[in-house]
Amino acid sequence: MTAAARIMSKFRLAVVQLQVTSVKADNLSRARRLVLQAAGQGSKVVLLPECFNSPYGTSFFSDYAEKIPGESTQMLSEAAKENQVYLVGGSIPEEDGGKLYNTCAVFGPGGEMILKHRKIHLFDINVPGKICFQESETLSPGNSLSTFDTPFCKVGVGICYDMRFAELAQVYSREGCQLLVYPGAFNMTTGPAHWELLQRGRAVDNQVYVATASPARDEAASYVAWGHSTVVNPWGEVISKAGAEETVIYADIDLQYLSDIRRQIPITAQRRDDLYSVTSVQEASG
Amino acid sequence: MTAAARIMSKFRLAVVQLQVTSVKADNLSRARRLVLQAAGQGSKVVLLPECFNSPYGTSFFSDYAEKIPGESTQMLSEAAKENQVYLVGGSIPEEDGGKLYNTCAVFGPGGEMILKHRKIHLFDINVPGKICFQESETLSPGNSLSTFDTPFCKVGVGICYDMRFAELAQVYSREGCQLLVYPGAFNMTTGPAHWELLQRGRAVDNQVYVATASPARDEAASYVAWGHSTVVNPWGEVISKAGAEETVIYADIDLQYLSDIRRQIPITAQRRDDLYSVTSVQEASG
Repeated sequence: MTAAARIMSKFRLAVVQLQVTSVKADNLSRARRLVLQAAGQGSKVVLLPECFNSPYGTSFFSDYAEKIPGESTQMLSEAAKENQVYLVGGSIPEEDGGKLYNTCAVFGPGGEMILKHRKIHLFDINVPGKICFQESETLSPGNSLSTFDTPFCKVGVGICYDMRFAELAQVYSREGCQLLVYPGAFNMTTGPAHWELLQRGRAVDNQVYVATASPARDEAASYVAWGHSTVVNPWGEVISKAGAEETVIYADIDLQYLSDIRRQIPITAQRRDDLYSVTSVQEASG
Repeated sequence: MTAAARIMSKFRLAVVQLQVTSVKADNLSRARRLVLQAAGQGSKVVLLPECFNSPYGTSFFSDYAEKIPGESTQMLSEAAKENQVYLVGGSIPEEDGGKLYNTCAVFGPGGEMILKHRKIHLFDINVPGKICFQESETLSPGNSLSTFDTPFCKVGVGICYDMRFAELAQVYSREGCQLLVYPGAFNMTTGPAHWELLQRGRAVDNQVYVATASPARDEAASYVAWGHSTVVNPWGEVISKAGAEETVIYADIDLQYLSDIRRQIPITAQRRDDLYSVTSVQEASG
């Protein structure tokens, strides 16, 4: 491995666990400040949480929704360019053609938008007495799988409930992603039960790094986020984890380590493609 | 639900964590006694560990291998019949046509063999300084996915390293299995790292019960098993777990609870079959 390749095989990832309030301008300005802070620590990829410009809730989505490009994504573009980072812009409620989506826009270090992922699995669950939420009351689903390239590795993007679907991570991994990022806002029921388990499962099953970005917890909100933004390595270990409050966490992503794990336990080569198959069916525009 | 259906929606599962020694006759007689003990506690399905009649190691497989039917499976058949249980016979080294397999034979309460699963993913890993094992030095892989029916539910069978492959569990789940059983012998490296994580991941991703049966730990063996036979529910919770020593653990499998979980978080209906697909490619004889 050349010295240059060795350098490119490691990069710093930052996860911004933003305290999201009902004041959009405040959300945007604090997000921007924390991206600057993350870049100051050497981060090359920065991840924001789901619904970072708006409280999370079906009653808020239409009020806070924007076109893309719009005010929030303009800030993301500028922050990416100013800090020379890949900025995974969590998600915002997006309005397009009279429909609303839960959308993650990703910007490159030149400020250009390089990906738009619309949450493909809407969060419709009902655990009696614990949590009932129906995103589909107001949102429409996206219809595309979404990956982007960096000089370090390919990255797969999902939003929150997308993480429950192992197939998405499997397809991303087969397409060459070595890092999966999920802006997400689990709650006080599914958070303690499944948030970390799902991430560790995706990581160990696909031998990839997995990072999640949650909003900080606001006990006064109608939907209380679990927090605990996390980064997991390809061995399934949590290597960085936030508490409940606003913070930025960091992880050094080591693609040589990932490669070592894949050589030690070579499940990719050992898969029985003659017996089962996981495939991407189509990639419609979404 | 009728009273009969309600009764059938619950059944007791027993997992026998056998102390496997180098004396085959002793392994067989203790296994038989522990199946009797499990049935005495009301168990309807009993699970034995991987390689229950032989020490685990490539140098042992040919010495302990048997045809099926043979001495070990004859015992299993009799134990199933005597105790009126479904007996998932862990695994034994099987000889057939000059080849060796790591094979799980399953017997119904009438004593008839109802399934033979040959481990389809051979355990070939090399974690330097920790664990190097190459099953493929002596074993051949099976070529079939393997499920069996009971009056309670359909059951999917894998052996140890088969559990690392999420696809197998996904296909079993799609075929209607509500319980997955993995006789397995993880080691002192992969055991603490991945044994429970993989089981909880399979359970929560597929909303099924997952049970594993390990040999008890023998610190003097060439391959030291992790032990910790476990049962996980469809919410991803460990509901029964052994330590390292010989024991029988029990879990009451509640298919109504499983059904509740699937209604509360309906990922099966929410999967985006228009975007990705997990399929069984073929089922060759193996």
